[in-house]
Amino acid sequence: MIITFGEMLLRLSPPGYLRLPQTQTLNFSFGGAEANVAASLAFFGKSTGFVTGLPDNDLGQMCKAELRRWNINTDEIVTRPGRLGIYFCEKGVSQRPSKVLYDRSGSVLSQMQPEAFNWERILRHAEWFHFTGITPALGNNMEKAVLDACRTAKKFGVKISCDPNYRRNLWDRQTAENVLSQILPYVDVLITNDGCADEVFGIRPAKQSSSDELFPEDYRSVAEQLTDRFGIKTIALTIRKSISASCNRWSAVLYDSKKLYTSLEYTLQVVDRVGGGDSFAAGLIYGITEGYEPSLILEFATAASCLKHSVEGDVNFVSAEEVLALVQGDGTGRILR
Amino acid sequence: MIITFGEMLLRLSPPGYLRLPQTQTLNFSFGGAEANVAASLAFFGKSTGFVTGLPDNDLGQMCKAELRRWNINTDEIVTRPGRLGIYFCEKGVSQRPSKVLYDRSGSVLSQMQPEAFNWERILRHAEWFHFTGITPALGNNMEKAVLDACRTAKKFGVKISCDPNYRRNLWDRQTAENVLSQILPYVDVLITNDGCADEVFGIRPAKQSSSDELFPEDYRSVAEQLTDRFGIKTIALTIRKSISASCNRWSAVLYDSKKLYTSLEYTLQVVDRVGGGDSFAAGLIYGITEGYEPSLILEFATAASCLKHSVEGDVNFVSAEEVLALVQGDGTGRILR
Amino acid sequence: MIITFGEMLLRLSPPGYLRLPQTQTLNFSFGGAEANVAASLAFFGKSTGFVTGLPDNDLGQMCKAELRRWNINTDEIVTRPGRLGIYFCEKGVSQRPSKVLYDRSGSVLSQMQPEAFNWERILRHAEWFHFTGITPALGNNMEKAVLDACRTAKKFGVKISCDPNYRRNLWDRQTAENVLSQILPYVDVLITNDGCADEVFGIRPAKQSSSDELFPEDYRSVAEQLTDRFGIKTIALTIRKSISASCNRWSAVLYDSKKLYTSLEYTLQVVDRVGGGDSFAAGLIYGITEGYEPSLILEFATAASCLKHSVEGDVNFVSAEEVLALVQGDGTGRILR
Amino acid sequence: MIITFGEMLLRLSPPGYLRLPQTQTLNFSFGGAEANVAASLAFFGKSTGFVTGLPDNDLGQMCKAELRRWNINTDEIVTRPGRLGIYFCEKGVSQRPSKVLYDRSGSVLSQMQPEAFNWERILRHAEWFHFTGITPALGNNMEKAVLDACRTAKKFGVKISCDPNYRRNLWDRQTAENVLSQILPYVDVLITNDGCADEVFGIRPAKQSSSDELFPEDYRSVAEQLTDRFGIKTIALTIRKSISASCNRWSAVLYDSKKLYTSLEYTLQVVDRVGGGDSFAAGLIYGITEGYEPSLILEFATAASCLKHSVEGDVNFVSAEEVLALVQGDGTGRILR
Amino acid sequence: MIITFGEMLLRLSPPGYLRLPQTQTLNFSFGGAEANVAASLAFFGKSTGFVTGLPDNDLGQMCKAELRRWNINTDEIVTRPGRLGIYFCEKGVSQRPSKVLYDRSGSVLSQMQPEAFNWERILRHAEWFHFTGITPALGNNMEKAVLDACRTAKKFGVKISCDPNYRRNLWDRQTAENVLSQILPYVDVLITNDGCADEVFGIRPAKQSSSDELFPEDYRSVAEQLTDRFGIKTIALTIRKSISASCNRWSAVLYDSKKLYTSLEYTLQVVDRVGGGDSFAAGLIYGITEGYEPSLILEFATAASCLKHSVEGDVNFVSAEEVLALVQGDGTGRILR
Amino acid sequence: MIITFGEMLLRLSPPGYLRLPQTQTLNFSFGGAEANVAASLAFFGKSTGFVTGLPDNDLGQMCKAELRRWNINTDEIVTRPGRLGIYFCEKGVSQRPSKVLYDRSGSVLSQMQPEAFNWERILRHAEWFHFTGITPALGNNMEKAVLDACRTAKKFGVKISCDPNYRRNLWDRQTAENVLSQILPYVDVLITNDGCADEVFGIRPAKQSSSDELFPEDYRSVAEQLTDRFGIKTIALTIRKSISASCNRWSAVLYDSKKLYTSLEYTLQVVDRVGGGDSFAAGLIYGITEGYEPSLILEFATAASCLKHSVEGDVNFVSAEEVLALVQGDGTGRILR
Repeated sequence: MIITFGEMLLRLSPPGYLRLPQTQTLNFSFGGAEANVAASLAFFGKSTGFVTGLPDNDLGQMCKAELRRWNINTDEIVTRPGRLGIYFCEKGVSQRPSKVLYDRSGSVLSQMQPEAFNWERILRHAEWFHFTGITPALGNNMEKAVLDACRTAKKFGVKISCDPNYRRNLWDRQTAENVLSQILPYVDVLITNDGCADEVFGIRPAKQSSSDELFPEDYRSVAEQLTDRFGIKTIALTIRKSISASCNRWSAVLYDSKKLYTSLEYTLQVVDRVGGGDSFAAGLIYGITEGYEPSLILEFATAASCLKHSVEGDVNFVSAEEVLALVQGDGTGRILR
Repeated sequence: MIITFGEMLLRLSPPGYLRLPQTQTLNFSFGGAEANVAASLAFFGKSTGFVTGLPDNDLGQMCKAELRRWNINTDEIVTRPGRLGIYFCEKGVSQRPSKVLYDRSGSVLSQMQPEAFNWERILRHAEWFHFTGITPALGNNMEKAVLDACRTAKKFGVKISCDPNYRRNLWDRQTAENVLSQILPYVDVLITNDGCADEVFGIRPAKQSSSDELFPEDYRSVAEQLTDRFGIKTIALTIRKSISASCNRWSAVLYDSKKLYTSLEYTLQVVDRVGGGDSFAAGLIYGITEGYEPSLILEFATAASCLKHSVEGDVNFVSAEEVLALVQGDGTGRILR
Repeated sequence: MIITFGEMLLRLSPPGYLRLPQTQTLNFSFGGAEANVAASLAFFGKSTGFVTGLPDNDLGQMCKAELRRWNINTDEIVTRPGRLGIYFCEKGVSQRPSKVLYDRSGSVLSQMQPEAFNWERILRHAEWFHFTGITPALGNNMEKAVLDACRTAKKFGVKISCDPNYRRNLWDRQTAENVLSQILPYVDVLITNDGCADEVFGIRPAKQSSSDELFPEDYRSVAEQLTDRFGIKTIALTIRKSISASCNRWSAVLYDSKKLYTSLEYTLQVVDRVGGGDSFAAGLIYGITEGYEPSLILEFATAASCLKHSVEGDVNFVSAEEVLALVQGDGTGRILR
Repeated sequence: MIITFGEMLLRLSPPGYLRLPQTQTLNFSFGGAEANVAASLAFFGKSTGFVTGLPDNDLGQMCKAELRRWNINTDEIVTRPGRLGIYFCEKGVSQRPSKVLYDRSGSVLSQMQPEAFNWERILRHAEWFHFTGITPALGNNMEKAVLDACRTAKKFGVKISCDPNYRRNLWDRQTAENVLSQILPYVDVLITNDGCADEVFGIRPAKQSSSDELFPEDYRSVAEQLTDRFGIKTIALTIRKSISASCNRWSAVLYDSKKLYTSLEYTLQVVDRVGGGDSFAAGLIYGITEGYEPSLILEFATAASCLKHSVEGDVNFVSAEEVLALVQGDGTGRILR
Repeated sequence: MIITFGEMLLRLSPPGYLRLPQTQTLNFSFGGAEANVAASLAFFGKSTGFVTGLPDNDLGQMCKAELRRWNINTDEIVTRPGRLGIYFCEKGVSQRPSKVLYDRSGSVLSQMQPEAFNWERILRHAEWFHFTGITPALGNNMEKAVLDACRTAKKFGVKISCDPNYRRNLWDRQTAENVLSQILPYVDVLITNDGCADEVFGIRPAKQSSSDELFPEDYRSVAEQLTDRFGIKTIALTIRKSISASCNRWSAVLYDSKKLYTSLEYTLQVVDRVGGGDSFAAGLIYGITEGYEPSLILEFATAASCLKHSVEGDVNFVSAEEVLALVQGDGTGRILR
Repeated sequence: MIITFGEMLLRLSPPGYLRLPQTQTLNFSFGGAEANVAASLAFFGKSTGFVTGLPDNDLGQMCKAELRRWNINTDEIVTRPGRLGIYFCEKGVSQRPSKVLYDRSGSVLSQMQPEAFNWERILRHAEWFHFTGITPALGNNMEKAVLDACRTAKKFGVKISCDPNYRRNLWDRQTAENVLSQILPYVDVLITNDGCADEVFGIRPAKQSSSDELFPEDYRSVAEQLTDRFGIKTIALTIRKSISASCNRWSAVLYDSKKLYTSLEYTLQVVDRVGGGDSFAAGLIYGITEGYEPSLILEFATAASCLKHSVEGDVNFVSAEEVLALVQGDGTGRILR
């Protein structure tokens, strides 16, 4: 079973491209980086479990019900009195960016003791453990919980992946760097993007091929520096070139301490880019656990996250067959009958 | 200007009679006991102002915009970093009750210092000051703010009305009794319902006319006891007989230390009963400030709150003309062309 | 073919029980007294045609398309530059009445010349001609058009029915009485309600059986007076007792110059009462043209209009089979599978 | 684990009270008598499993996901090429009945071989087995599957309950009687309603207490005859008095071969009556498996199904706590905060 | 009158870009290749009639009502007990393709006898007869019905057009080739696309101008081969280059046995591509029956289908004036006031 | 305070890209060129007032409430019996243009006397006065009202801006030229677009840089001619290149009688282009009144109107901070968290 650990949030979005002051209804869904990864893996057909803390009220129960609907094991979810974090999300379009308003402080997970989770039981038979930097960013308790989980995973030989996912409204850069520097040495696979390595660790491309634009090859030095600094063998970086909120170019690189693999680049008409990185992480973990070749791992992850941008909400409602069809070159959008 | 003081909340409700686990969209509106009273008075044509603390984000700005739309003065609203309280409301029907899930702890108003509001400036030229027991229930700071406001109002000869509005999830009975016992001596008009006086102060009808049912006359002793205990001259009590969540009988009494006035009783098909008491308070304040006779004050307030039950949301979108038409006997619902 | 003649309007209604200032969307449909009658007759299986003037724009074309969808012949509809009348309709509930805001002045039909319609061609082979008092109320031109149509119908032996349908915002009582007094002598079947005869002609029940309430028998004298004054052989009156906007009692009487027939009384939970009278008229015309016995004619018309109150919009989407099932006593609402 | 076995259907309903020709959108949900029972039991906190055949397409996967969301075990669901049955449901109101249009013929379950289900594995450790008459009505294969299941259940000492649920569009009365007469001898608990016993078996009350109305006591003889004929020890009958599609009176009786228990009668404002009988069956099974006294079993089942009528859709989104609150007398619909 | 013959389907689509597992509502509309062609021609102002078999239930009646709304003659539609075919359609976007899930097997038309249609009466005075390959693909009966219709059309000198519209889920390639090879010799105008000729008949461009891309001129050999093989004088081919599901390039060629005409190429932002080919067929038939020059016929058909891609649903709600405005070069989308 | 003067309209739009005959609901909002400008300025933080005439009914009150919500002073709005103008707006996409159907004739403002507005009181302390050519196009009365306002503004030294905004369905070109020629000499800042100067005044670029396309520099001569003819010191022109209804290129020039400033060009994915010019005017007035340098004034106005194209409705729900962020180069649409 692939285990992910993190916070689940209620997402409230105005319909279409309406801004918050224009709407009388909000679309209601659930998300959260690690739940998104678990959902995507479950849709690909993997056995997955999600570990979190939820409030012992209707919203907490609805989270669990939704996780079950996504075919995710919920046995190790802990419920406590408290609140569920919320975020409001206006979808951007053209030159207007998406805008996220968080109302997550004081959430039940952030208030939980690290001992609330029985990592021995959770990870003993696990195949993989994944989390993002958002979990330790929730405070000292969750920082400790992540470290406990990583140590336990290592003990049982469970592979660990992490997406640092820096959020400046949760912690400052310095704290993030300190905490992540303790955690990353446990990590086998680091999944991040072109901006995050620079923002948190000051790691940036050694040189730039052209003045205007970065090319995948430019990211080799970023991967090498991350490998050198934290001893992580596998580094994957997504590369987003935002033409506008509606049009992005999207590709990725994978570095396995030896070779840098570069993916196809997709031009995306963006329906919803929240969860784009999570769907990439899910694709990567899928490819690795399925035993794909590195280049196919990378193409699968990139195609999976390409498709995510065409799906509303946080979660990538896409099957492995659909991803493979895109990998095999059918991105033309002809009707499937 | 009539000033009300309290907390504003974001209300999120499933459409129609859906329960939370059944919905993918939520209707989005704003409410809060004292804002509801101000809105209703503004729709009746009175000059009104609302005093509160709001977060300095989009939701806070939307609250202010909505208050302006309702024609309420927002000059004395204070904005600060923080969060807006939220409540989720499932509408009941038939034997299934409405269900409210609060997510209001840590709201920006509850965290504010009492000195944040300049009561001298706010109340110097005011005509009336209204609040409910929810405001002091938000914590010591707001308890002090209410007492400051009451003292200032008294100094300027501003009439004060209060609806104790006991909420057990905000404070326990004993705290409520202690705090309200300090506040009520400042109050000129007490607006409450048949259950609240018993629940907080242990004041109940001296006798009951029949074994099955209370009649308006039975509430005289409740009013007398409240007058005796807190020295409040004017007491209004709403009387709700819930046949089911969809069908209520609704009436009220008014006691002016001399005489008990009893209203017509309406049989309501309930569209939304949230804000029913607030619309009654607004009707009562309207009647008093317009100089109506006591019996018309009471009938106006009862008819106003009768109509509220036919309006979706917290706020009573009804004009004084519409209330008067109902007072004058047109409750038959014939089409107005 | 049954021909009806009148104005078609665009109806815009807030969803559910929302009031206009609460909504961001409006439900969009078409209606109008005479179009409603034609639609109902078409759903009963009769051959029908509707005569009107419509603007030569998208809205006019949509009216025609909707009439075709309802299976109504549109060959004699005239199009001209101009505007379509509009009405906004808030649905009432409980003690709050429905509220209609008309924006129909200057409509294309009201500006049309009476000669625009070729009554010889329209009525030569018709089975029936129906209109309401709203048509002549649109102004002198339509007053003349109605008189032309009535004379032509008489010439060809076509039966004429009229529902005076007094609208005080279209004409004053005196004008209505004058104009209708010219028209009614042509009419074979008069369809009206308990209030209209009094309001326009000052004709009211000679006596009242009880102080509180009118009984169907009380309406005999109203029917007799109408027969005496205008020489109309068949008079049908609907009787509405509004308990509230949501609950009405509904019955009718039919007077054939000899006998007064009285229908069953239905207690209605009102979904939408606009078009209630029109659905009764359609039921009556159906019963007469099908050669039913007077008592069945009346029960069919009453049951048809009973069902209309359960249907959203102006138009009675109900089949003759469904009406007959109700006439035969199945008003219990058990599921039809 | 409580096992239920039957067909799942896609339900498509116009919003609100719209009729099919009036709508452009359909509400989309899943239902089916036995799935409804399993869902309700799961919401009460029981371990449940649902056995069925589903198409191997997106709709089949969505059914499974929804069952998981409802916390129902789906391990024994079989998927095959084929189609999912559909039903269109117009909600009735006032005198207009609900109208169901079935499009279920040729469904994948009805085409399945009886051997598709491994009853030994399914029932060996089960606590209860429930099905309705709809399952054998799907054809000879499912008739045989039900008999196989009943025999296996008996072998393992699993209690069996059945709701005959006669549907005249699936089979004729004679076939139903023949098939059910083979099945019912296996049944421990028969759950049916006042009409069905008469319709299928010609069993009706021996006498009627009054000319107008049946009283619960009148149903004793129906229960006795069912016990005599099929040797079923426990018989429960729901009693619906339809005042209209919107207003029903609802009660039930329980006969344990010795005593007839009669429940409270509820006056329902009907939101959605589909699944009313299923929610009663779930309540009954819950009460029995929890070891309640017979009178509480009956009151729990009746209150559960009372609440179902206030919930949209087939499925009773109600907890055991909510049912018990109603049993304990709080049917007044006061707001739960 | 232009007659089209084929199956009508109920189309159910999630709103916006939602996938099926994400939606609780479905947009409800009707479509079907030949009905789409008739509707488009009716909107262009032509007299049209649609021939089909429909179920004798509410859905069948709604189909007829919708056809009437589109101004299509429904006199020759036959109703029978049975079911209406359904299709679920997820709209694709970006790299994610549209996905159609058919539930059309056992539809009433596919079960009908070929004799159900009176081709002598239907076609005696017709101007044109159009069908697609979907109709004979429904089975032997419809294959025979199409052949009967073609023979009758030929007898009366009615022009015949056909769009082979190969659907692999309805028949296999070999059956399609066999059946179509019998039918096509009757056809005067063949309307197809770049993929279909290859897929069914193995006819592909003789050479390709460039390695990357086909140019309109490359299709001359396809047209010539079709002409040679089936003796069809007029061949029109649409050419779609799918950049993604959201962005297509669209053009067409027309071959009149002498000359190959090539249209403008449009870059489409795709709103809904279902019905794109049907709208082209309608434009072509319109142009021919209006007596346009070949180049204008082609440009009209291409522009009509270009606009279809901007319209939701199967049906091209566009007037001839709007198409001509685009033909005359106004594709800039400036607001029409 | 910045004062704008003009007509407010009710806007009714089908959801998404539906055409009018496809919809059953209409989105309901308010707009009007001068109200849009005032709203945008209020969102930028300026003190603004809107002057108009409104009907004394619910729609008029809703207009005022909406203006208050937008933070616009409504003290000088006059209410009278009459109607509110309406427009129906189908949103275009791809090659299909947006289509506006006006129903504004006979509106209350167009019927009002010029003396209805007290310009002395309105403008005495104003900072700026803005109107568009639509206001005098409403008829002689409003033509006189505009002239009165301009003279009064000049007297008090209030700056005047005007957007001629030619609407051919309101007046013919000759009348427009005559009337505007009287008004423009009062104007300090003229805001128009590349088409309007040509259409009304026959003023077009002296030469064109290339055969295909106009470049910003080409508009210098247009600005010079306008300055010469009407003595207007400041001329701003927006330049729209419509690739399709969905994709526009957008830029602007500003001429201050000395220098021509040219803005960045944005490639827009158009959500709603109604109000694009109004948002530019608001941006320009904001920049001037904030004392920005000419180049920043122009970039601010261009960026503001760029963002408007991403916002639904007439009104630009965008803050000054958001505009400045775009001016400073962040048009990439990355998520703001």
